[in-house]
Amino acid sequence: MTDKELKSKRIAILSPVAWRTPPRAYGAWETVASNITEGLVARGWKNITLFATKDSITKAKLVSFVDKGYEEDKSQIPSVSTCLHISKALEQAGDFDLIHNNFDYLPLTYTPFIKTPMLTTIHGFSEPDILRVYYDHKDSYFVSISDSDRDPGLPYLATVYNGIDLSGLTFREKPGDKLVHYGRIHNDKGTHLAIEVAKKCGMELIIAGIIQYQAYFDNLIKPHLNQSSIQYIGPVNPTARNALLKEAYAVIHLNLIPERFGLVMAESMAAGVPVIAMDLGSCREVIADKQTGYLVKNVDEAVKAVGKIDLIDRKRCRQHVEENFTIDLMVEGYERVYAEIFRREAEKK
Amino acid sequence: MTDKELKSKRIAILSPVAWRTPPRAYGAWETVASNITEGLVARGWKNITLFATKDSITKAKLVSFVDKGYEEDKSQIPSVSTCLHISKALEQAGDFDLIHNNFDYLPLTYTPFIKTPMLTTIHGFSEPDILRVYYDHKDSYFVSISDSDRDPGLPYLATVYNGIDLSGLTFREKPGDKLVHYGRIHNDKGTHLAIEVAKKCGMELIIAGIIQYQAYFDNLIKPHLNQSSIQYIGPVNPTARNALLKEAYAVIHLNLIPERFGLVMAESMAAGVPVIAMDLGSCREVIADKQTGYLVKNVDEAVKAVGKIDLIDRKRCRQHVEENFTIDLMVEGYERVYAEIFRREAEKK
Repeated sequence: MTDKELKSKRIAILSPVAWRTPPRAYGAWETVASNITEGLVARGWKNITLFATKDSITKAKLVSFVDKGYEEDKSQIPSVSTCLHISKALEQAGDFDLIHNNFDYLPLTYTPFIKTPMLTTIHGFSEPDILRVYYDHKDSYFVSISDSDRDPGLPYLATVYNGIDLSGLTFREKPGDKLVHYGRIHNDKGTHLAIEVAKKCGMELIIAGIIQYQAYFDNLIKPHLNQSSIQYIGPVNPTARNALLKEAYAVIHLNLIPERFGLVMAESMAAGVPVIAMDLGSCREVIADKQTGYLVKNVDEAVKAVGKIDLIDRKRCRQHVEENFTIDLMVEGYERVYAEIFRREAEKK
Repeated sequence: MTDKELKSKRIAILSPVAWRTPPRAYGAWETVASNITEGLVARGWKNITLFATKDSITKAKLVSFVDKGYEEDKSQIPSVSTCLHISKALEQAGDFDLIHNNFDYLPLTYTPFIKTPMLTTIHGFSEPDILRVYYDHKDSYFVSISDSDRDPGLPYLATVYNGIDLSGLTFREKPGDKLVHYGRIHNDKGTHLAIEVAKKCGMELIIAGIIQYQAYFDNLIKPHLNQSSIQYIGPVNPTARNALLKEAYAVIHLNLIPERFGLVMAESMAAGVPVIAMDLGSCREVIADKQTGYLVKNVDEAVKAVGKIDLIDRKRCRQHVEENFTIDLMVEGYERVYAEIFRREAEKK
């Protein structure tokens, strides 16, 4: 297949409908679905359709069955919006050569009814029980977002790392003077550990992100907040995130469960900010240890790592992202996967 | 179509997988799905397949993709079991002449992908938002379980009242001396109002059923319980329910939202027990006012109704169920609906 033939294939990108695509602030899966869509268009793909909420923004063709993200409009029952969005998108399956699913396991249950192949990027296994659906559809096509985030029983075509939009992330050689922790506020992300690190280092900490686990925030985070040294500034949109990273001496990311990919780490490095991360899951795939940050095992190691941040070349952080985690590189990865799927499908015929 | 031809049609009954079919204790939708299935078999249908949990009991052919009800096995994510059960059942749609869906809105989203007609008995609209799916599939076939429980914007083929199994409900002419309230313990069912009525009448009350709303039980019910006059005995299986109704002078059912059908009312009358019910929703379709119980508007009217229970002929209560709410009558109703669907489908061809 020539490059021109490949890029004329009709691709449906199925984004989640929890948030707008791209999301206003939080919404990792929608962010990646948006980056894939816009990246394909930028690389000359002619027939890209994005299935997402009606208020979504794209240079591709937008098709919507849900007006707003169910996280932004609480009158919606999420399972109702989800099944309508998915089923009505897949009713159009015959109009596409490939459906690229970025919305979890439910779309797989419709695959026996459609002829168009489906590629699912597994953005995460929210619970072990959802593997029942994946195992029931092992004949489908899967991509992992890091080598570490793979279920050993599933067949994968490839790992395609998430790519981020560098245009909104200003590289700054001059470090800020604060520690920064951002993302969803949840035990899994170790927000309370970032506070420990800041206190032990005697440095200021800015925390940002949506509160995903209110009791955790109320009991483990809120009591430590004040107007000066430990601040919580709420969720950040891309502009606010860029401003936040200007303040950062380092980003503290002491995740307590294996990271699946870790957009926060890539974004931080893109802004030239080294990341101190727990050595769990994909962190060692995203961070170049001792070159763009430090992989640690506990709070004490994180405190020591803060003491060695000056050894990190911030230009190297940016370069590491440019070489590994751009939208263009991600889309190149998906182009190879799409081509492989078309090859296998042609073989079947 | 001859009766023999009709009864040789291949029917798939899609039951929910929240509980076993039939359920051990609570599980209204599974109860009705079971009654339809066994009723069809009893009336000589030759090709009935029940899709339900693996531990279900049926004289029809049982096909299962989920071992146990997700309410009985908390390791399952309900949405995972639900979508697997539904999608895998519908993958076999081509083997059936009709799919009779008793499991809410999700099956409708698969109908554009299958050729077999689907009849959905709408056992309830859990939330207004689920109407989005029903409205999107108005070309499907719908049955309501009472005339009152109809959405004005949906086309219905018929109302088919639920039928109950009379064999496990012993008719007793001699009244018990207690008031009884049973069903799921929830504000909607007015358990707290049954307590009010019992206190005002100076009568004993037995409450039974699963606690569906724990804070309601803890705050509005539990403080009134004692070892003698107001007792809560937990959920009741059919045997325990039969024993419970022996104790009943009347059943108090002061529902605060429109009842959709009200299996509790039919069961009570079948045992010869008059029902005092709020005049909301289907209650006036199920109870013959002043003949098999009393329709009331508030607690005071309910108290007065208790004083008039002796005017009710308990034989008439049983007879009313025999004439309106048996499994056989329900299945006859569905046979008429099935025949109408086959007629319409034949016309389309």
